[in-house]
Amino acid sequence: MILTVTLNTALDLTYRVRSLRPHTTHRVSEVTERPGGKGLNVARVLTALGHRVTVTGFTGGATGGVVRELLALAPGVRDALVPVGGPTRRTVAVVDERTGDTTQLNEPGPTVTHAEWSAFRGAYEDLLASASAVALCGSLPPGVPVGAYAGLVRAARTAGVPVLLDTGGEALRRGVAARPDVIKPNAAELAELTGSHEPSRAVRDARGRGARSVVASLGEAGVLAETPEGRWRAAPPTRLHGNPTGAGDAAVAGLLSALVEGLPWPERLARATALSAASVLAPAAGEFDRGTYEDLLTRTSVTAEATAA
Amino acid sequence: MILTVTLNTALDLTYRVRSLRPHTTHRVSEVTERPGGKGLNVARVLTALGHRVTVTGFTGGATGGVVRELLALAPGVRDALVPVGGPTRRTVAVVDERTGDTTQLNEPGPTVTHAEWSAFRGAYEDLLASASAVALCGSLPPGVPVGAYAGLVRAARTAGVPVLLDTGGEALRRGVAARPDVIKPNAAELAELTGSHEPSRAVRDARGRGARSVVASLGEAGVLAETPEGRWRAAPPTRLHGNPTGAGDAAVAGLLSALVEGLPWPERLARATALSAASVLAPAAGEFDRGTYEDLLTRTSVTAEATAA
Repeated sequence: MILTVTLNTALDLTYRVRSLRPHTTHRVSEVTERPGGKGLNVARVLTALGHRVTVTGFTGGATGGVVRELLALAPGVRDALVPVGGPTRRTVAVVDERTGDTTQLNEPGPTVTHAEWSAFRGAYEDLLASASAVALCGSLPPGVPVGAYAGLVRAARTAGVPVLLDTGGEALRRGVAARPDVIKPNAAELAELTGSHEPSRAVRDARGRGARSVVASLGEAGVLAETPEGRWRAAPPTRLHGNPTGAGDAAVAGLLSALVEGLPWPERLARATALSAASVLAPAAGEFDRGTYEDLLTRTSVTAEATAA
Repeated sequence: MILTVTLNTALDLTYRVRSLRPHTTHRVSEVTERPGGKGLNVARVLTALGHRVTVTGFTGGATGGVVRELLALAPGVRDALVPVGGPTRRTVAVVDERTGDTTQLNEPGPTVTHAEWSAFRGAYEDLLASASAVALCGSLPPGVPVGAYAGLVRAARTAGVPVLLDTGGEALRRGVAARPDVIKPNAAELAELTGSHEPSRAVRDARGRGARSVVASLGEAGVLAETPEGRWRAAPPTRLHGNPTGAGDAAVAGLLSALVEGLPWPERLARATALSAASVLAPAAGEFDRGTYEDLLTRTSVTAEATAA
């Protein structure tokens, strides 16, 4: 099975309002609840691709209970979330029906105690024993040490399990030094890590910091990958308009599933790009239409690039 | 005991953000959860005044569970909420730390079935048997008939229990025709009910529609009351700056507690006005500082007015 780790799971709420006007009162016309956090989105895409997935991370309180209830309805996802005393955070996406734009409000998440973090570490190492790959996804909740991902990367390498790290900021900076197999920063995370706003230079720099391979997700421009086997750029066939939330998670699912299936880099990148594009066209993170994905896959271009310094 | 009815209870969330900017992503720096809905706020103020209170209405789902847990921590409030299949709604107040302004997002609430409404009616009639007064507060959740408050007013009158109705729109229009003892509209609700933006004329009109007494809460201008015993205006001593959420609920608690204590109208109105003003100065709905309230009470003016047509 593929293991995804979401230390800061969430109950994702989507509120539709006629028009969001600060400092006024709004009736929410429609409420949607779904299990959230990057690793849970990755898991949904992986199961849709036919992989068996186990999700772990922290969950607690009434909101955590709802997350677990909703997860239990998702076929093929095994819930190995570790209980925590504080309540799982909510995220609220307020969709303005007039403009279609979204305003996002993210709670910080529960404070994780030292004992809870130790319990998680133990559970994680047990799960690695039967994992074919692991994805470490998203932000760290309060209380988890900023070097947390570095420890989780090292444990995966010790267990011989390929590990992908998808986070940002200091958590990424510390994690990359522990030599993960793949990191998947977006343009902003890559620039923050390397200090360079030039992706071509930045992916090389990021490899130099310890990542075996770097796959930068560059939005509409597709992905740029710097790997030991070469450098490639993959791009969707057309400009896509839709909901970019979860596009990066779909890319992670594409990379990880193709890695586990033993596919070469160009096919991994094509899958990541097509899944990401199909996810933009779907209404919610972690969803995609299979026909749209398969069509986009045949029309996604992957181009080898020179890796000269 | 005093009974308060909140058909559309809520889990009230307050989010503090640095600055609310539509179409961007915000980290919420602080999350507060409290039991919400007008009748629950009224109950908190009544217990602070030393009255025993029973709360009823509907509650359901994980959010309803949190509301009940938080209520259990409130001393002196007896929980007689009736279970419903759908989840209790959330309300989200987003406080902009830069300006202090609040943006409100209110979920619609669960859809109540015919069987659930019947179960509530039975529970309500049982509770009336030991009630000294009842307050019917707030909006109706989906599924509850728009004439619901009219039925609840009639049942209270049949049981000989004084009944105060605090709602708006069509629910108020239908409810007032059933002859409640008191209605407490704000300026907008009063204008919508009567078609008149002139409070002096509108309170008289509202009595003509069936309310035995009308107490209009007019914000900073205090309250204007039209009763069988006369007409009064009560005003706080100074202009107050603060959080107006819950000021109307504090006024309801003031009116109801003073009614149960057998106080004459001028004292009821002074209490309602001073509690309402003290609540504006408190950080959250249903709260007030006792010293502030007692000081404001001594300085609140109540003036009899001529009731000539």
